[in-house]
Amino acid sequence: MKTLHVPLGGRAYDIHIEAGALRRLPALTAAFLTAGEPVAVVSDETVWALYGQTVCEDLRDAGLAFEHILVPPGESSKCMAQLSRLWERFGNMGLGRAGTVVALGGGVVGDLAGFAAATWMRGVGLIQAPTTLLAQVDSAVGGKTAIDIDAGKNLVGAFHQPKSVIIDPRALATLPPREYATGMAEVVKYGAIASADLFARLETEELRENAATDTLRDIIYECCRIKRDVVAGDEFDTGRRMLLNFGHTFGHAIEAKYGYSRYNHGEGVAAGMRIAARIGETLGVTRPGTAQRLSRLLSRYGLDAREGTDGLLPLVRRDKKASGAGVKLALLKEIGAATVQHLSYTELEAALRTLKQVG
Amino acid sequence: MKTLHVPLGGRAYDIHIEAGALRRLPALTAAFLTAGEPVAVVSDETVWALYGQTVCEDLRDAGLAFEHILVPPGESSKCMAQLSRLWERFGNMGLGRAGTVVALGGGVVGDLAGFAAATWMRGVGLIQAPTTLLAQVDSAVGGKTAIDIDAGKNLVGAFHQPKSVIIDPRALATLPPREYATGMAEVVKYGAIASADLFARLETEELRENAATDTLRDIIYECCRIKRDVVAGDEFDTGRRMLLNFGHTFGHAIEAKYGYSRYNHGEGVAAGMRIAARIGETLGVTRPGTAQRLSRLLSRYGLDAREGTDGLLPLVRRDKKASGAGVKLALLKEIGAATVQHLSYTELEAALRTLKQVG
Repeated sequence: MKTLHVPLGGRAYDIHIEAGALRRLPALTAAFLTAGEPVAVVSDETVWALYGQTVCEDLRDAGLAFEHILVPPGESSKCMAQLSRLWERFGNMGLGRAGTVVALGGGVVGDLAGFAAATWMRGVGLIQAPTTLLAQVDSAVGGKTAIDIDAGKNLVGAFHQPKSVIIDPRALATLPPREYATGMAEVVKYGAIASADLFARLETEELRENAATDTLRDIIYECCRIKRDVVAGDEFDTGRRMLLNFGHTFGHAIEAKYGYSRYNHGEGVAAGMRIAARIGETLGVTRPGTAQRLSRLLSRYGLDAREGTDGLLPLVRRDKKASGAGVKLALLKEIGAATVQHLSYTELEAALRTLKQVG
Repeated sequence: MKTLHVPLGGRAYDIHIEAGALRRLPALTAAFLTAGEPVAVVSDETVWALYGQTVCEDLRDAGLAFEHILVPPGESSKCMAQLSRLWERFGNMGLGRAGTVVALGGGVVGDLAGFAAATWMRGVGLIQAPTTLLAQVDSAVGGKTAIDIDAGKNLVGAFHQPKSVIIDPRALATLPPREYATGMAEVVKYGAIASADLFARLETEELRENAATDTLRDIIYECCRIKRDVVAGDEFDTGRRMLLNFGHTFGHAIEAKYGYSRYNHGEGVAAGMRIAARIGETLGVTRPGTAQRLSRLLSRYGLDAREGTDGLLPLVRRDKKASGAGVKLALLKEIGAATVQHLSYTELEAALRTLKQVG
């Protein structure tokens, strides 16, 4: 078992990464639970079909009082209606302030169940058990929870740190290739912003979903470590944490441009990283050749999405992190090093225009 | 202007109390606002009819970009539907992470708008401008926000400290007597748990809604000071803050017993304090005679609600602060001093039975 400590004072927690870690769910949950208090396991129907029986047996064997609550798979479950359903179920099962919510699934389950836990009785315990690569390296770590509303994605949410994160790389073996690739976009991002070694490893090895679990474990560990280091210095996302946003400002805009139907998150971020790297080169912030190297690595992992810059600016202005005056953009200095730069909309427009001209 | 500082580290804020303080709303809001960022003023129709025009003119004169969002008056607005409406309106008006929400009204508006602010983009700025006595001495101070769901009241919520609290005692002049009395229940509570002087003053003076604003200001200040002192030591309500719950465990149960239709919050708390004081005497925790003195003062302010103890226990067990093992009960030692005591349900049942026998 590899364990990574996230030092956030009274909200500190550990991330446990190992093949088979899911079997330790009962023990890791019990460690934070007052005896006799109930556990609500939230999952989606797809994930539950794979792990539900084992998880139920393990929790029962450990003597925990629990109920499971399933939502339909997919982004549309990150909504008011499902949130409301979770709250009512928590009420009916008698989940008190000392109770715990377990989020077993991908980013949708983690964000939804996490937000429900953050707001139930003003915050109850939460265990994140992410089963997709994207959730394991990104959404389950860092304490961000959210739902979508008509006005936009992730507009409603809370910071709510888990008591524990349980990452089982074996879960990746059952991921559809497109789901695996969307997670790899974030893995590539970590290399690009913070670790030239990780980036080089991704270039030389072939890190597929069926790679040796020790290899996957090490890669996931490295991504979580990078995220941990950034988050620990900026829990509430007001400064340094923006580095993690590399590719995301444009990625969100690209996802939104097609009503979230054409690209999934990782594909949008991949296209967004391509744009951000080229803007960085245009501005003289990013070492020349970086954009090309990044683009090549993304393609290697099936992330071929490329988008023009037409119509992106108004969508960027609507980003959560945008302000009236401009946007803070994460840019690469070179592979393995990033910086945050404030650009006015005029400067951003000029940079996007230059990109368009050079093609 | 009397100002009370609430020392909560990075979440510290000031409470401003003075006749006419509402006119300082634009200046106190602007102090925390990035120039040009929008302000959402949330209020209810009754309150808006009284203050809306002045508030709009003042905000406009100060050059602030704002919109107002009104909800129907009454507890039923503390619901998912109104919450969802606020979120969508925030989205449509372009309220970003640097925007601010102003809650202008009683406890319902403060709790609802406060929770909307707590969860909008994972937390935006909040100014509490309470206009009822209950909100001024209790709900607007301390950072608790919540909505009601079918499973129960205040089950969903967040801790979200305001940037500033603006208390205008002049607003009390327009309160209906029953609304004023519900606030007085909390004022009496503060005297009972923490200030023999305040309690004695309430016994000797006649503190009505039309009292001199300086007198009201001083009383409100004293209540806020007591709450501040308790909250500052226990922001997230895990220990000492339970003292503020004196009368509330039974009060909530009594409110719930009649489906929240017979008693309002203060009336329930008044009846609950009568029970808690008598239980304290029965257990030998509370000095004999205290219950009678407390009951007399409550009656003086129109709080005559008295409830038997039949059927209360199952309702107490459903309280947010109850656990499987029992309940932590705030009890008086004497007027001006309180303590928190854990009672198993067996002990609580025995105490309630004794009360019933002595009548």
